[in-house]
Amino acid sequence: MKTASIITIGDEVLIGQVVNTNASFLGQRLSEVGLEVVRTVVVGDVYDEIMRAFREYTANFDAVFVTGGLGPTHDDITKKVVADFFGAKLVEDKDVLENVRDRLARRNIPLRQVNRDQALVPEGCTVLMNHWGTAPGMLFERDGKFFAVMPGVPHEMRNITTEYLVPLLREKVVGQVIRHRVLKTTGIAESSLFELLGNPDDILGGKARLAFLPSQFGVRLRISVRAAAAEEADSIADEVAAKIHDKAGKFIYSEGEVELEEALGKLLKEKGLTIALAESCTGGLISNRLTNISGSTAYFERGVVSYSNEAKVELLHVPAELIRNFGAVSEEVAGAMAEGIRAISRTDIGLSVTGIAGPTGGTEEKPVGLVYIGISDSRGTVVNKHNFPDERVRFKDRTSQAALELVRRRVLGLA
Amino acid sequence: MKTASIITIGDEVLIGQVVNTNASFLGQRLSEVGLEVVRTVVVGDVYDEIMRAFREYTANFDAVFVTGGLGPTHDDITKKVVADFFGAKLVEDKDVLENVRDRLARRNIPLRQVNRDQALVPEGCTVLMNHWGTAPGMLFERDGKFFAVMPGVPHEMRNITTEYLVPLLREKVVGQVIRHRVLKTTGIAESSLFELLGNPDDILGGKARLAFLPSQFGVRLRISVRAAAAEEADSIADEVAAKIHDKAGKFIYSEGEVELEEALGKLLKEKGLTIALAESCTGGLISNRLTNISGSTAYFERGVVSYSNEAKVELLHVPAELIRNFGAVSEEVAGAMAEGIRAISRTDIGLSVTGIAGPTGGTEEKPVGLVYIGISDSRGTVVNKHNFPDERVRFKDRTSQAALELVRRRVLGLA
Repeated sequence: MKTASIITIGDEVLIGQVVNTNASFLGQRLSEVGLEVVRTVVVGDVYDEIMRAFREYTANFDAVFVTGGLGPTHDDITKKVVADFFGAKLVEDKDVLENVRDRLARRNIPLRQVNRDQALVPEGCTVLMNHWGTAPGMLFERDGKFFAVMPGVPHEMRNITTEYLVPLLREKVVGQVIRHRVLKTTGIAESSLFELLGNPDDILGGKARLAFLPSQFGVRLRISVRAAAAEEADSIADEVAAKIHDKAGKFIYSEGEVELEEALGKLLKEKGLTIALAESCTGGLISNRLTNISGSTAYFERGVVSYSNEAKVELLHVPAELIRNFGAVSEEVAGAMAEGIRAISRTDIGLSVTGIAGPTGGTEEKPVGLVYIGISDSRGTVVNKHNFPDERVRFKDRTSQAALELVRRRVLGLA
Repeated sequence: MKTASIITIGDEVLIGQVVNTNASFLGQRLSEVGLEVVRTVVVGDVYDEIMRAFREYTANFDAVFVTGGLGPTHDDITKKVVADFFGAKLVEDKDVLENVRDRLARRNIPLRQVNRDQALVPEGCTVLMNHWGTAPGMLFERDGKFFAVMPGVPHEMRNITTEYLVPLLREKVVGQVIRHRVLKTTGIAESSLFELLGNPDDILGGKARLAFLPSQFGVRLRISVRAAAAEEADSIADEVAAKIHDKAGKFIYSEGEVELEEALGKLLKEKGLTIALAESCTGGLISNRLTNISGSTAYFERGVVSYSNEAKVELLHVPAELIRNFGAVSEEVAGAMAEGIRAISRTDIGLSVTGIAGPTGGTEEKPVGLVYIGISDSRGTVVNKHNFPDERVRFKDRTSQAALELVRRRVLGLA
């Protein structure tokens, strides 16, 4: 199996002003192609540091993937280092220049020298055309090894990788295959899930690895298999996944990259159900997650972010005395919100949340983290109480996940 | 200046199933303390790989910070490698055991052997207590060098770092200071901003570095200064920031970590203004962003996610004939939505968005990416038209940013 490494260039990543999503994206794609990603490193925008990393990583790995430092401004020096590293001079590429000219023209920006310089590439490389920006990617092959350089702007790098780099690598990379399969669970703690699954060896049979990856959205289980051929790896992964499903099936809401909002959206579409939301403490997060999915118009009818009590009364028709008697954060109000939004929207499902996101606003009786999630459908109204004492945005994440999961289980008859 | 490196351990990071936010968080905190972060590396959950990284990085840097692989399951091997690396045996720490016992008891989970093992630490280390989880952090000092190990669960690592690690490092780290100042702009392209600022040398005077960091939320400008003392570095950074403000001030909405929703929230609070939202294509994202800010109850009254035409008519009182005549995505409907939400909420400001998020639903006349943003206040109603042809979630991000920025400029009298 060929080894790969990823070099991310940029002071902003080292000092943490930008999160390195490029390395994670590349890590995924390279693994899928069948490269074993062994190391990823971040270095600053410093000539000697970049050169040192190029030397070290090309010596130790079969393929090196570099991102960052190709922009039009003075702090972008990657291309210069690459040219020096390969002893190649920079030459103007006509197609790249055409692309730069086109892109700027469409936005009515004049072609300046800084833009024109983006069309310079080291002689002898294969250009990976950037139709999503102005800095091209570059691929070098030397002695059976690969060296690719791409811009650091995430969506440009992603598109170049998907459109050009991955097909080229598929063509040229052979050998052992690695397969990862991820099962996503929610509503169960890591250690409880570990106990529930029992002895890992019984599940894995020595043929796969299993990792537990917890976050505020739940615990993901990653099965990793190496095999000579894709079919063999897939069949081992299938076998392991089936054993896990047997033991923990009801906690698993999706596989792979599929988020809960996408899995739920598919389910609602299949069942022909519509939903409307009444959110208080989540402030629109649940609506936002549902509408991140293309095609959500089919099932998402409307949402109300009823932050004030007036909004709850006026828009959702929650009786004012319920709020007076039980407080806005209460089982009673959550139920009335779910019923109210369902009634005014004429949807199959009404979902509500009301809670105390914090850090302020908690009391002895109703502490920060307390939240009621209500659901109303043809079978009636149910309200669940949770405690998610956590920092504000994590509280919102956890609440949104529990709310979406409640809908999923309810639709499947599990709740 | 002392050098630092960060080692992230975890197959999930290498293969990109988890984004390395730990390295970015640590990179920020270490820079602030005055350490120069020179490299960050990711290695898999493999004994030899981890040991090799420990040897290489302790040899090359003054301080090494390790995260990941301390969990309770079989694939977490970091503690074993650390103990072997320092030739220390694992001993039970009473305080850690007490913490583990407490935490599980509060959640009614029995203390199992896997949990008890979390209280084992290498002899001779300083324990960094984890009050947010069960795996403790560990700090080693050898020959004036530092070596810290922390769990990989982000909020646990962040809390341990902030509460224990940073104060310890502040006490022990001296020497040259590095200061970063970030000015956040939006509504202007990177190359236009570069041109607007003119020759970098005029602004920087050879005493600082300036980086351009573009994203869908705008371009951040990072000023970096090194100096012997904090006061000197701050005064140089002030000087550079002032020059940038002179040239591009109206595009700058905040400094540092402050997001647009926070800057805007502060502004609304200061002016005593309230806001309500009518979102269509952003699906609740803008409400979600505003309510991520603690204290937003003071100015955010309510939001409506009027995905369907019925919701626009029923909740926002948009005349049905406007939708029939001009379409839901039109200047006319955006204006009526902003006026409608303002009227029913009795707020100072009504903000609306309606557009085509894609990837489907576009036409020749109204392509994917088209969006109208409307604002209604005591001065009247204004609708801006934008084109953000982009992938769905990025479209939502860009639209939400433009909408919040419109409110900011309007409140400041700039729009």
